[in-house]
Amino acid sequence: MPEHKAASRLRLSGLCFLLQILNILLFAGFVRYSPESSSSLCSPQLNCSRRNQDSGFQHPRFRDVHLQVLLGFGLLVAFLGRYGPGSVAISILIVSFAIQWAILIQGFLYFLNGKIYVGARSMVSADFCTAAVLISSGAVLGRVNPVQMLLLALLEVTLCTLNEYILLSLMGVSDSGRSLTVHTFGAYFGLMVSRILHQPHMDKRKREDQQNTGHQADVFAVVGTIYLWIFWPSFTSATSVHDNAEPWAVLNTYFSLVASTIATFILSPVLYKESTPRMVQIQDATLAGAAVMGMAGEMLVTPFGALITGFLAGLICPLGFRFFTPVLQSRLKIQDTCGVHNVHGLPGILGALLGMLLTLLATADTYGDRLELVFPLVAQGSRTAADQALLQLCALPLTLLLATLGGCLTGAVLKIKALRSPPDKGNLENTGLWEVDKEGCDPRTSGKEPGISTLV
Amino acid sequence: MPEHKAASRLRLSGLCFLLQILNILLFAGFVRYSPESSSSLCSPQLNCSRRNQDSGFQHPRFRDVHLQVLLGFGLLVAFLGRYGPGSVAISILIVSFAIQWAILIQGFLYFLNGKIYVGARSMVSADFCTAAVLISSGAVLGRVNPVQMLLLALLEVTLCTLNEYILLSLMGVSDSGRSLTVHTFGAYFGLMVSRILHQPHMDKRKREDQQNTGHQADVFAVVGTIYLWIFWPSFTSATSVHDNAEPWAVLNTYFSLVASTIATFILSPVLYKESTPRMVQIQDATLAGAAVMGMAGEMLVTPFGALITGFLAGLICPLGFRFFTPVLQSRLKIQDTCGVHNVHGLPGILGALLGMLLTLLATADTYGDRLELVFPLVAQGSRTAADQALLQLCALPLTLLLATLGGCLTGAVLKIKALRSPPDKGNLENTGLWEVDKEGCDPRTSGKEPGISTLV
Amino acid sequence: MPEHKAASRLRLSGLCFLLQILNILLFAGFVRYSPESSSSLCSPQLNCSRRNQDSGFQHPRFRDVHLQVLLGFGLLVAFLGRYGPGSVAISILIVSFAIQWAILIQGFLYFLNGKIYVGARSMVSADFCTAAVLISSGAVLGRVNPVQMLLLALLEVTLCTLNEYILLSLMGVSDSGRSLTVHTFGAYFGLMVSRILHQPHMDKRKREDQQNTGHQADVFAVVGTIYLWIFWPSFTSATSVHDNAEPWAVLNTYFSLVASTIATFILSPVLYKESTPRMVQIQDATLAGAAVMGMAGEMLVTPFGALITGFLAGLICPLGFRFFTPVLQSRLKIQDTCGVHNVHGLPGILGALLGMLLTLLATADTYGDRLELVFPLVAQGSRTAADQALLQLCALPLTLLLATLGGCLTGAVLKIKALRSPPDKGNLENTGLWEVDKEGCDPRTSGKEPGISTLV
Repeated sequence: MPEHKAASRLRLSGLCFLLQILNILLFAGFVRYSPESSSSLCSPQLNCSRRNQDSGFQHPRFRDVHLQVLLGFGLLVAFLGRYGPGSVAISILIVSFAIQWAILIQGFLYFLNGKIYVGARSMVSADFCTAAVLISSGAVLGRVNPVQMLLLALLEVTLCTLNEYILLSLMGVSDSGRSLTVHTFGAYFGLMVSRILHQPHMDKRKREDQQNTGHQADVFAVVGTIYLWIFWPSFTSATSVHDNAEPWAVLNTYFSLVASTIATFILSPVLYKESTPRMVQIQDATLAGAAVMGMAGEMLVTPFGALITGFLAGLICPLGFRFFTPVLQSRLKIQDTCGVHNVHGLPGILGALLGMLLTLLATADTYGDRLELVFPLVAQGSRTAADQALLQLCALPLTLLLATLGGCLTGAVLKIKALRSPPDKGNLENTGLWEVDKEGCDPRTSGKEPGISTLV
Repeated sequence: MPEHKAASRLRLSGLCFLLQILNILLFAGFVRYSPESSSSLCSPQLNCSRRNQDSGFQHPRFRDVHLQVLLGFGLLVAFLGRYGPGSVAISILIVSFAIQWAILIQGFLYFLNGKIYVGARSMVSADFCTAAVLISSGAVLGRVNPVQMLLLALLEVTLCTLNEYILLSLMGVSDSGRSLTVHTFGAYFGLMVSRILHQPHMDKRKREDQQNTGHQADVFAVVGTIYLWIFWPSFTSATSVHDNAEPWAVLNTYFSLVASTIATFILSPVLYKESTPRMVQIQDATLAGAAVMGMAGEMLVTPFGALITGFLAGLICPLGFRFFTPVLQSRLKIQDTCGVHNVHGLPGILGALLGMLLTLLATADTYGDRLELVFPLVAQGSRTAADQALLQLCALPLTLLLATLGGCLTGAVLKIKALRSPPDKGNLENTGLWEVDKEGCDPRTSGKEPGISTLV
Repeated sequence: MPEHKAASRLRLSGLCFLLQILNILLFAGFVRYSPESSSSLCSPQLNCSRRNQDSGFQHPRFRDVHLQVLLGFGLLVAFLGRYGPGSVAISILIVSFAIQWAILIQGFLYFLNGKIYVGARSMVSADFCTAAVLISSGAVLGRVNPVQMLLLALLEVTLCTLNEYILLSLMGVSDSGRSLTVHTFGAYFGLMVSRILHQPHMDKRKREDQQNTGHQADVFAVVGTIYLWIFWPSFTSATSVHDNAEPWAVLNTYFSLVASTIATFILSPVLYKESTPRMVQIQDATLAGAAVMGMAGEMLVTPFGALITGFLAGLICPLGFRFFTPVLQSRLKIQDTCGVHNVHGLPGILGALLGMLLTLLATADTYGDRLELVFPLVAQGSRTAADQALLQLCALPLTLLLATLGGCLTGAVLKIKALRSPPDKGNLENTGLWEVDKEGCDPRTSGKEPGISTLV
């Protein structure tokens, strides 16, 4: 057993070493800073051809990188509320690897003329991709070991970039806040991996052991909620940085956050026997209210639309936790450690459907100059609003298909026996390492009435 | 009793639902994004007529929204240091509701031409109002239930906006960092509500049960202090964003923070038998040093003025806690859960008096081009500096009057029996819910010498 | 003994009072806001003569102040991971004093024409100096009392400013991210103070009592790591804010962070018997990966160079902790509470050597327009690249000499008996005050195998 543990440790160490050397070699071979740093960094998926490239954009752009990387961590912090600090070290490893890998893969897809020219925009784009990986990891957290997690990141970054390329570049879908390419893709990819990795006997015990984080949960949930309130509006508007377009995406996200938070206060006392919702529930509502604004954020032209959408997302999320997650678990055998289906999956789909509806209503009359920014092809007359709406709608099943197939494939790879054996021991060891309170219990189910725990 | 609790839960749920539906309907009826988003968003209370509306302002403006909303949370975090995570869920509910309500009320006061046009500026203004509500809630925290808190927010937002309208628009008072309209108003409003809600027998027990947060207090106070250092200078200068004027307000606030922190290190060992002050005391000094800079921040023309002012605020705050809070409690029967009188009330008044003095000294000679920005009416010659100073002085009793009357009215409403009954049980349940350490004790009074607790 | 404690308390109180009054008087005598705030604030050490002074620079500049002060706190938070909240109150006191003192000292060195004109740039510069003091305090934390710490800040700010003046103004060395003047100077200054203060019998007991922070350590390390990832890239690029130059410094820092994080995951399982590194180790790697980018950040012209450098820094840091710190402690009798030698000292030297190498390679061909920004004297033809490289190389031993001599001098001052006596009691009292978990143990040595603790 000791030599087994030593082998497990060295396997991670070795894999990290190989991947990092590979990254350095690929960077040395292909990646360069662009000679004139501001004008040629424009990758098609960021649609900068249709944005103004004024010099004032320079500064916001790299600050967005800050916010994005932070947001990556915001997501980490978000998971802390449910899973404890044990998840952070692995998440930082994933972020560190996925950012490099995403820059390479995106570069190979977009700039296949010998060199990949990177800049702050590439970092933002790589951060989006990393966010999808983090969302997926939320579904399988606690049941995969770090080596498996690294391979998951390797595969998902590749597939996520491919999906983004098809949607944004080939189909011309408008998804500036990434409802589809980040939230929906990440959630369903993770759920499929979780399904494939399902082990009937193991999971039951695991769930009680590890999902519970006890006292610190609320503290982390407070910090996570605050981070999300601050930085998510920047996330949804990161690629629509324009004098006119950005404020709307930011404001819509704020209004959505506000309404979804209040919705949680409405539903929570009805669903659970608690007078006020727990912080993790408020955090989920925040995430859901922001995820739903991904695609529609820059399309909504009235504040009350954002209020209604956020309100619906805030209602769907706790209902999903209460009624859908148990079904997912018992019938479909899909375990969802952090509830990413309710927090990212369902709101992402809702956001995509809403985006489709709003595209149908897009006329030069309601949008004004903004039409050129949000739907450049419609504004140029090369597409009708209905065509655009049809494409937006087609993007949803396509994303679901790619996410599901990709998740199955990745799950199958992770199930290879050579990879699978250490996780159990590794994880238990890990739990001890992080000194997670064992006496604590799942924040969601730890009501004082014993009846609640059995219901959920 | 169980059905009593169920009724209490559903009352909050129902009230949230009603208010949110009301907000959505009012937003649907009146609130729109402005057609050309940058130029017409200018509300009188933000004095943007006298600020340059250059395009470079666009970007800072919406980031300030981020910072403001954060700052709202910064205040939350600040309270955490004294009251624990139990206060956060309710505070987030209040923020979510108050932002919407403030946008509506401010819109009705300022833009009564059929539609309310919102933008990042409106959000900043709404955030200011929300900050006042959060300050007031600091005085009554732990003795009101969520339903009462929502009604308090409903009434205070209305009155605070009215006060702001009278001071800034009608009287032309200069209060860019909101010493009067946020700090003083919020503190005295909350204190009066606390006075009206005073219950002789209840409060005594409560105080020992709930004010004490134990081990986590210092951790939260650390985080709160850091947040305040980072974001408060943006708060005091949010509405004076101008190439020349802003740096002074920011720098003055920094210098004030620095001096008030050192003042705490001077007084604390003298007043309490501790070699270094506790983190909550440092946090209070930070708050006081920033609150005092609200009005004077953009008026002070020398750094040492800011150092002296901050130093005084840093001395007043612990002296208030040591000698004034007990008097307030025993003689005036005003309980002040988070010490908002020392942290916001007194520094706010000091700041207003200082602002009046500085206004007297305002000449084109000392201010140069800046005079046009800080005192536009004086610069245009339609008022003398003495007239402006008199108005600045009158604004103080007017704010106190409105805050006191408004607080009495709100307290009376909250005392209605239908609202009052559940809080006690609701709160105890709440405390259990948040798993606050009961064995902990008030950070301020938990010296090792038993004599201290009885003194304070 | 009680009167002893009272004397100790009042000594700190009195010293703070004297220093603050001195600061206020000096500010009143010399410090003014500059009349036209944007153009004349330019101090030589910030090299703004060679930067574009366009109006767009105005705004980033004062936000950098925010970030810097935050970064000061970021460092605080970083130390929390190893030393607990007990260190924060003292650190905030040091920050409050050092910022004022640095503005004065830098003013006297640079603006000796009667008045010191301050602005956001001066604050940034003062923050850099404060960061050096915080790094030094990391080496002696837990073994000096607050009075000694204040005197350390007083002396170090003076010497650090002198070193910066010689390097940047007299020698024209390029060190925009302060590898030498902050990281290397701060680390070796602190280590020498630690050496001089060495007390054979005392330190042993202390170490076990105080260095250990237990459960909360990981939580603080998570927060500290996130802060550093967000704000460090701004730190390394704060003084190179230019349309073209900045993004490279920021991006290089990110790439370095990413690679050093992965390096930790590679080495940690090999050096310690743990499958994943602890959060404090990841935090150290983050710090090291950023410190190494200080000088080279704006010089590196390829992303893979940053990846390799960060990777090396990430390898050096844990190796230093494993093999170098024990030697430092046992042979050289230098105790290094927070490991600043591995985290700031070695990466700072590595960064300086790399900067020298890159300077040798600096040609107009590889740098383009950027050469004018990074090496203005080389671009103007008044120096060859080889001359510049020689000066960059000379700056390293000069900094080490000044830091070492300054540290010896400061240590000797702090050893004066009148100052030395109270610390022991004061500190124990302090520890109790902050309620540090005594049962916890050093995160680095608390493996489950007892063998590890004895090795480290």
